[in-house]
Amino acid sequence: MIEIERKFLVKDDSFKKEAFAKNHIAQGYLCSLAERSVRIRIKGDKGFITVKGISDDAGMSRFEWEKEIPVAEAESLLHLCEKGMIDKMRFEVKSGPHVFEVDEFYGDNEGLIVAEIELHSETEPFEKPQWLGEEVTGDTRYYNASLNITPFKKW
Amino acid sequence: MIEIERKFLVKDDSFKKEAFAKNHIAQGYLCSLAERSVRIRIKGDKGFITVKGISDDAGMSRFEWEKEIPVAEAESLLHLCEKGMIDKMRFEVKSGPHVFEVDEFYGDNEGLIVAEIELHSETEPFEKPQWLGEEVTGDTRYYNASLNITPFKKW
Repeated sequence: MIEIERKFLVKDDSFKKEAFAKNHIAQGYLCSLAERSVRIRIKGDKGFITVKGISDDAGMSRFEWEKEIPVAEAESLLHLCEKGMIDKMRFEVKSGPHVFEVDEFYGDNEGLIVAEIELHSETEPFEKPQWLGEEVTGDTRYYNASLNITPFKKW
Repeated sequence: MIEIERKFLVKDDSFKKEAFAKNHIAQGYLCSLAERSVRIRIKGDKGFITVKGISDDAGMSRFEWEKEIPVAEAESLLHLCEKGMIDKMRFEVKSGPHVFEVDEFYGDNEGLIVAEIELHSETEPFEKPQWLGEEVTGDTRYYNASLNITPFKKW
């Protein structure tokens, strides 16, 4: 239930032709504090409720709990959420034994593309594709819960 | 997913000998606004996550969504919750075709006993047991989410 993730900006959209999966994601927040968030997500034809906790100092490790729920229930719960909604396309791209999840944002976060990789330890090495840009792990501005309140276009 | 409930104070503890079930409940809140709360509950040997929405004007109808989750997961999620915890014993008491859930609170809410009945409509009649006191439906001070922040002993 502790997830170790590193997050990067993306230089260009060449990742798209390497993607093996592509899903639309709509998500809102029942609460969106950096130390405690409850997210409702519809990804393709599936619904999820996800609780995230506070991160460690480096921002790599974070408590995460997730349950799949019926899409109709996720839709009802989205109506309850705080104002604002995250709208993005998620591309999944293989990189050696790992998978990068690359999110292209729309709406008020148009122009932002972020790639995340999940690791087994904070020091686990991984291959960096040529499209991978600056690391932004631990920068809470890039938390989706933060982007919902202060979207990229307003930075 | 809309629940219709009426809430009452309780005059004395004579309800206890009429109870057909009794379970300890510990619960905390990931968020505890009157218009949107996310509750983690351990009731006996079961865990639950519950989302409640805003109520109508009379305070009888409220959106409610609940999923049972493993107790170990509920315990992890309780650690993430806002400061404070609701600690109470729930007694279930039959009254005609209905069931009253009677909660006796402990800790900072010691001295408070509240009975709730779930109805199919806002005008559905029900039998009032002799121990049933003043109606407090719609009084947000009695929301458990509110009691967690401003407990009964501080009123």
